Amino acid sequence: MINIALMGAGRIGKMHAEIITAHPEANLQYVYDVNKEFASQVAKKHNAELVNSPEEAINSDTIKAILIASATPTHTQFITMGAKAGKAVFCEKPIDLDINKVNECMEAINGIDIPLQIGFNRRFDNSHAKVQQARVNKEIGELEMLIISSRDPEPPGLDYLNAAGGFFRDTTIHDFDLSRFILSDDPIVEVSAFGDNLFDPNAKKAQDFDTAMFVLKSKAGVMIHINNSRRAVYGYDQRVEAFGSKGMIISNNQTQSSVERYSDASSSSKEPVLHFFIERYVQAYRDQFNHFVECIINNKKPSVTFKDGRNALIIANAAYESNRQKKVIEINYE
Amino acid sequence: MINIALMGAGRIGKMHAEIITAHPEANLQYVYDVNKEFASQVAKKHNAELVNSPEEAINSDTIKAILIASATPTHTQFITMGAKAGKAVFCEKPIDLDINKVNECMEAINGIDIPLQIGFNRRFDNSHAKVQQARVNKEIGELEMLIISSRDPEPPGLDYLNAAGGFFRDTTIHDFDLSRFILSDDPIVEVSAFGDNLFDPNAKKAQDFDTAMFVLKSKAGVMIHINNSRRAVYGYDQRVEAFGSKGMIISNNQTQSSVERYSDASSSSKEPVLHFFIERYVQAYRDQFNHFVECIINNKKPSVTFKDGRNALIIANAAYESNRQKKVIEINYE
Amino acid sequence: MINIALMGAGRIGKMHAEIITAHPEANLQYVYDVNKEFASQVAKKHNAELVNSPEEAINSDTIKAILIASATPTHTQFITMGAKAGKAVFCEKPIDLDINKVNECMEAINGIDIPLQIGFNRRFDNSHAKVQQARVNKEIGELEMLIISSRDPEPPGLDYLNAAGGFFRDTTIHDFDLSRFILSDDPIVEVSAFGDNLFDPNAKKAQDFDTAMFVLKSKAGVMIHINNSRRAVYGYDQRVEAFGSKGMIISNNQTQSSVERYSDASSSSKEPVLHFFIERYVQAYRDQFNHFVECIINNKKPSVTFKDGRNALIIANAAYESNRQKKVIEINYE
Amino acid sequence: MINIALMGAGRIGKMHAEIITAHPEANLQYVYDVNKEFASQVAKKHNAELVNSPEEAINSDTIKAILIASATPTHTQFITMGAKAGKAVFCEKPIDLDINKVNECMEAINGIDIPLQIGFNRRFDNSHAKVQQARVNKEIGELEMLIISSRDPEPPGLDYLNAAGGFFRDTTIHDFDLSRFILSDDPIVEVSAFGDNLFDPNAKKAQDFDTAMFVLKSKAGVMIHINNSRRAVYGYDQRVEAFGSKGMIISNNQTQSSVERYSDASSSSKEPVLHFFIERYVQAYRDQFNHFVECIINNKKPSVTFKDGRNALIIANAAYESNRQKKVIEINYE
Repeated sequence: MINIALMGAGRIGKMHAEIITAHPEANLQYVYDVNKEFASQVAKKHNAELVNSPEEAINSDTIKAILIASATPTHTQFITMGAKAGKAVFCEKPIDLDINKVNECMEAINGIDIPLQIGFNRRFDNSHAKVQQARVNKEIGELEMLIISSRDPEPPGLDYLNAAGGFFRDTTIHDFDLSRFILSDDPIVEVSAFGDNLFDPNAKKAQDFDTAMFVLKSKAGVMIHINNSRRAVYGYDQRVEAFGSKGMIISNNQTQSSVERYSDASSSSKEPVLHFFIERYVQAYRDQFNHFVECIINNKKPSVTFKDGRNALIIANAAYESNRQKKVIEINYE
Repeated sequence: MINIALMGAGRIGKMHAEIITAHPEANLQYVYDVNKEFASQVAKKHNAELVNSPEEAINSDTIKAILIASATPTHTQFITMGAKAGKAVFCEKPIDLDINKVNECMEAINGIDIPLQIGFNRRFDNSHAKVQQARVNKEIGELEMLIISSRDPEPPGLDYLNAAGGFFRDTTIHDFDLSRFILSDDPIVEVSAFGDNLFDPNAKKAQDFDTAMFVLKSKAGVMIHINNSRRAVYGYDQRVEAFGSKGMIISNNQTQSSVERYSDASSSSKEPVLHFFIERYVQAYRDQFNHFVECIINNKKPSVTFKDGRNALIIANAAYESNRQKKVIEINYE
Repeated sequence: MINIALMGAGRIGKMHAEIITAHPEANLQYVYDVNKEFASQVAKKHNAELVNSPEEAINSDTIKAILIASATPTHTQFITMGAKAGKAVFCEKPIDLDINKVNECMEAINGIDIPLQIGFNRRFDNSHAKVQQARVNKEIGELEMLIISSRDPEPPGLDYLNAAGGFFRDTTIHDFDLSRFILSDDPIVEVSAFGDNLFDPNAKKAQDFDTAMFVLKSKAGVMIHINNSRRAVYGYDQRVEAFGSKGMIISNNQTQSSVERYSDASSSSKEPVLHFFIERYVQAYRDQFNHFVECIINNKKPSVTFKDGRNALIIANAAYESNRQKKVIEINYE
Repeated sequence: MINIALMGAGRIGKMHAEIITAHPEANLQYVYDVNKEFASQVAKKHNAELVNSPEEAINSDTIKAILIASATPTHTQFITMGAKAGKAVFCEKPIDLDINKVNECMEAINGIDIPLQIGFNRRFDNSHAKVQQARVNKEIGELEMLIISSRDPEPPGLDYLNAAGGFFRDTTIHDFDLSRFILSDDPIVEVSAFGDNLFDPNAKKAQDFDTAMFVLKSKAGVMIHINNSRRAVYGYDQRVEAFGSKGMIISNNQTQSSVERYSDASSSSKEPVLHFFIERYVQAYRDQFNHFVECIINNKKPSVTFKDGRNALIIANAAYESNRQKKVIEINYE
């Protein structure tokens, strides 16, 4: 049984607590949150212990791993503490919004050999993963274009927007990582980004975007288009299309049931697509954690690394630069 | 150029007149209809000659073929006249509603070698034809079940119902023939039929059905289900499903455009299916006539024969018997 | 916490054990199976107690409910024991293959007021349930035709076939119940059945069918078609289509992912449909058990009753009669 | 009857000849082509007259309209001749590859009031037109993103490439115009273009692209993504997606039949999409010509104007500039 300390007991933390509990080989040992009320609720529900400080949990001999689902600014600190204590570390995305903090963390944990996994859950989605496989096994021949449509059902509140670090770093970062995942060993080298505020007054107040488009290029010449919106009335729109010399594979949306309706106004009408990430990526969140546990047990390196988290942030930062300068920006991963 | 005499200038006759005119190797020479007004209109529109009697048209040396789209009770008479005059004959379905008249006609034309084709247009539909091919080339392995859903968009008027010869002989006859077509050399040997009047007051007055289901069996054991309705609010529902030992092939409905809509209420919502047979089977009607012309030119036997028309009627008659006796009826084609 | 005794630890029993364990308000207390090896494995895995006799489990004061997943011939005995002990009872379908035993059981438990639920899981499938709602709330107007296609991925072995009681009583019984569920208060009054052995040598040895079609009628005139096969190479084919005066609703198949492929040979090609009932009805099995627990807690009558189990069997028996006599059989539920 | 002179009898000219002939109110009077062989064949097939010079046809009193389907460099000359002769003019896209020649032509015909229509056929496609309607009638609320995927089935030969004026001006010009059509009165103000040579050796020789992506912005802030390829193994990929505040509408691909296949490897597998523009846009080509005839008869201004042809070219030119400079280019329509 792998005992785990959960850092952060908010919306995402709660979900992870349930996944940990449901796993046959994992046990939720400690829960920490700066908000004691949250921590206490989660600890109670899952028969875990409430701890009063991160140190108490992370440095305990009882635990083998920490799962970081706390506020983004605390991520690098907890990663560092966990790594230095020799614990396996799972950290939600993004590592941090500030590349300097990410770099400092990278140096701080340099040379420490622990399983360290970043929470880019979409890589574990069965359907998206099949797109990546089709690229790797050349089922679609040589990949030439990749198109990701990724739209949230509704905009978050102003508080969230003020803390989230901006549309590209908070939301598109998933699509940057998914692009990197599908491209596999072919790195993204250029980005052009186009952000705008078309409808959301809160995004306007937060000086953030609600609508965005991107074109990226890989070293081998693959062209990537991403489009994002903070609101899609028909649900959480999550589509990936990989086009190649021998065909195309699309990871399409998933609906709430397999019902189709026919009336005098329409035919084959399906229900709206799954509402948001907790519904849409439930399988992916579960398999992401399965992978983490498996890496701990077999002492393997997780497939989603610190470097993956850092590189996605570097692309997001370059995207902001492109949007500001209205030109193509080359990406420097150094 | 093949000169053709059209017998009947009603709704179906008009459609055939247009198809004849559009064909590069056919010419509409004569138009006859008991209703002179109808005949005159069609003749005028297509630069054809109006004739005052069937004999005038059918026995003319100028024409090579007749196309019979007149009222059903006149079919056998015109077929016989045409055959005796040595003309190629295309006759709309059904040959007649009375099997005795069909048998008399069969005897009357016995031994006369002309191209004679019955208007079971659905055999020429590209999609349905692929189902038949998949059965013949064993793409789906051995055929085991065949399911046909065939529903009109709205019920016809009382006059039509009174003349049409009943739901099984007028409407299901297409599905009986389509089943025979897909089964190819494996004959239908049993039928169970279930007709009812569930919604249409005119069908009630005409002592006819508006809803029906059937189960048929072939000699090789294939089970066939057909369902019919006189009203489907979403359009002309025309589906064929062939299930076999190695897979399944479905000829699905066709919509008015390739548009799909997404809203807060539904996703992937298509437009209603094509409204009725003139829209849905336009390609089939055209290719059916192409086949007839090709048979005339190359002196070939059409693929849809008098016997096909007779056998479908025999099944329809047996279906009435089954519905009356509430039991399985064996089919005797003698 | 509701303590539960599980009777039967075979394939289905194991699945139920996992569902019980995962439920936040249920606890697997005892496991009994005539095969001690099976019982021991399941008990061990879920920290439950192994018992040596059904009585020991069922009569224990510790438990509040029994879940019967043992061999069919033991069902009525366990139901009776459970009811007399005042326990809530969940029993897998069918109640028994012999209507006399079912009737005896009905009398034996007559007047005992406990939650008693039969395992017609398909009623709890989200998509099928929406078809029933569309019939009840008249979204599709008046229901006129119901079409159920229900095909297993591959035939079971000879041992299973010899014990299962025949295709209609073991397999179609689900479709008979699903029809009854969708029809709601409109009873099925007639059945015509057509069974055959087209491909499976084991079914032949067991004098059983592998392919079947049915037409049933309700009191209000609704026509129902069911088709079954013991083998569908593309997976577990489970479709329900309800056609009414204002439209149609289809509960369609579900695929293993939401991926679509395009090549020079095909477009929009999806993966095979979910393999079998454990994959396809995982949500339904869970919600069926949720309902049982909810009924225990709130002392409610389950929505799937003993009578539902009995009526489905009566239809299956009438279906055999129809197939034998080759005619329509009226159904007598007395 | 409107007599028409056809300029150009190559692949596109032949298609137009057939459309003219099939139209009940149009007559193909003259055919001109610099290649006499081509002209002679088309004239013969459609009972038209062969002429030896453009003037002979265009200035004839017999004709009311000219249809220009000749090589691009001749377009402006023929437009000018036709306009000065007071004929209605239909001209295939593009008007010319050189904006200076387009501007000179614009001045030369300035003030001449004739029906003048440019051949942007996609505006007349039923499905694409419904996307435009959904934007205009606000069915999808405010338009925020527009995504066009437009891919040819296979690359043209080197000769074609050398004459065609480049990927953006020859191919993407359709998508630029379609974007303008859907945006209606909201002009495109910015373009970013990304072209590359990923697979086609002929395109390389012609210093042309085979793969391209674009992001454009409208004055109102709508973001537009276009992607193009010269080769899609599954057919002529033509999709348009309009995303707005109240929903989304997609004009999806169309397949060669409505057949769906199920096997042990896949389910719901459709046939490849329609092969190329002649198959895919047959309805659009026909309705485009219907519109032209209707404008002549009713003396109306065609909905696709010279200005539309010019503006699409201006966007294409700006796109080349963007690709060269690797930055966003503002579009100047003066």
